[in-house]
Amino acid sequence: LIAANPLRGLPEVRDGDDLAALIAALDAELRDGDVLAVAHKVISKAEGRVVDLGAVSPTRQAIELAREHDKDPRVVQVVLDESAAIVRAQRGVIICRTHHGFVCANAGVDASNAGRADHVVLLPRDPDASARALRAGLRVRLGVAPAVVVTDSFGRAWRHGQCEVAVGVAGLTPVDDWRGRHDSEGRELHATAIAVADEAAAAADLARTKDSREPVIALRGLERHVTPDDGPGAAALLRTPAEDLFL
Amino acid sequence: LIAANPLRGLPEVRDGDDLAALIAALDAELRDGDVLAVAHKVISKAEGRVVDLGAVSPTRQAIELAREHDKDPRVVQVVLDESAAIVRAQRGVIICRTHHGFVCANAGVDASNAGRADHVVLLPRDPDASARALRAGLRVRLGVAPAVVVTDSFGRAWRHGQCEVAVGVAGLTPVDDWRGRHDSEGRELHATAIAVADEAAAAADLARTKDSREPVIALRGLERHVTPDDGPGAAALLRTPAEDLFL
Repeated sequence: LIAANPLRGLPEVRDGDDLAALIAALDAELRDGDVLAVAHKVISKAEGRVVDLGAVSPTRQAIELAREHDKDPRVVQVVLDESAAIVRAQRGVIICRTHHGFVCANAGVDASNAGRADHVVLLPRDPDASARALRAGLRVRLGVAPAVVVTDSFGRAWRHGQCEVAVGVAGLTPVDDWRGRHDSEGRELHATAIAVADEAAAAADLARTKDSREPVIALRGLERHVTPDDGPGAAALLRTPAEDLFL
Repeated sequence: LIAANPLRGLPEVRDGDDLAALIAALDAELRDGDVLAVAHKVISKAEGRVVDLGAVSPTRQAIELAREHDKDPRVVQVVLDESAAIVRAQRGVIICRTHHGFVCANAGVDASNAGRADHVVLLPRDPDASARALRAGLRVRLGVAPAVVVTDSFGRAWRHGQCEVAVGVAGLTPVDDWRGRHDSEGRELHATAIAVADEAAAAADLARTKDSREPVIALRGLERHVTPDDGPGAAALLRTPAEDLFL
């Protein structure tokens, strides 16, 4: 049995807030073996990863790209700043590879739920480090260390709609690799590696609505994938350009 | 709260079996508003979508592709038969667009859990129709009509590991479209459409292991996405080649 349960009552998060302290104050009866899925936006806000568009001076490249795709040139400038490469820019959509290695629309830069008009929220600078820090903070405050998955909604090639995925992970096996193990008939599995952290992010997303202010979801039932050490993080989910067939 | 619970005790499914009857016999206390996530393999088996490789004569194209990618030419022939197009064939991986429009490795053709040596399982011919038929069969037998999601594990561009996704849907909103609605601060959301059926498939997958013979998972807590009519199905999740940036 897997259960996904929103933690209620988290206040609006601001720059400099101690998110572990805010979550610990909710008295949510967390256990070792639980997984906390945390929408990246509250982490980005606590870390000050919010940009005032009024302070952005777009370059010529941003101005041209914005004109082609009917976007705000200041937002496009922020997107370019967050990107290692533009993967596709077509039909008003800019798909980027971020400096972290994530491939997503607008390099994860988003105006919704930003907290202030004319501001945009970025992905955390190092979401795996953010996940580790939150887990460590919860351990100190609560004496238990649930795994932490930092999440964002990404679109997909070939399929409509977005799914919540893991952008930062601490203490959860990101990919459960069954290669070399056997199916229920004893046949060796050749190509089964389950993206547990992404499935956990997706499961958590079902437990909230986009206007519900429930950025933190507790997942129970994933104990077999939760590890005492923080593990390789969401970095293990990323194909390098050399490994990928669609870059 | 979302809960995912495997239904236990389903027997090995064979060609011609009435899957609705087998599930109804489990006495699982299903309700209207529940979602049943069903691994496609049991549906494919019940529908006879299993191929005896001993009866396959590979064409020259299949033999060449098999040699290039170190695969069984008979399996490659089946993959070609299931494909509308080869999207990529590189480094031993053959990514196909199936006749249904799914983009996935090997057109969904799989040897694991096939039930018999030297056999492979295909995707159902029309997984949305399979989902509708199963839902209708459950309604007749149980007097309740949980939504049905037929699932398979697909790899992804840019990310390691597979996630379970929806290949057939009846009675669940496949994409929850928030465009035109508002975030928690009243700002209009421009590009948020949540692939609910795929997130449901992923959540269900967390509740089983690949060797557990638990193809059917009941999800509770998604009532707001469950509809009396069967709806547009998983077809609504597919980008056409004209809409896609990666085909």
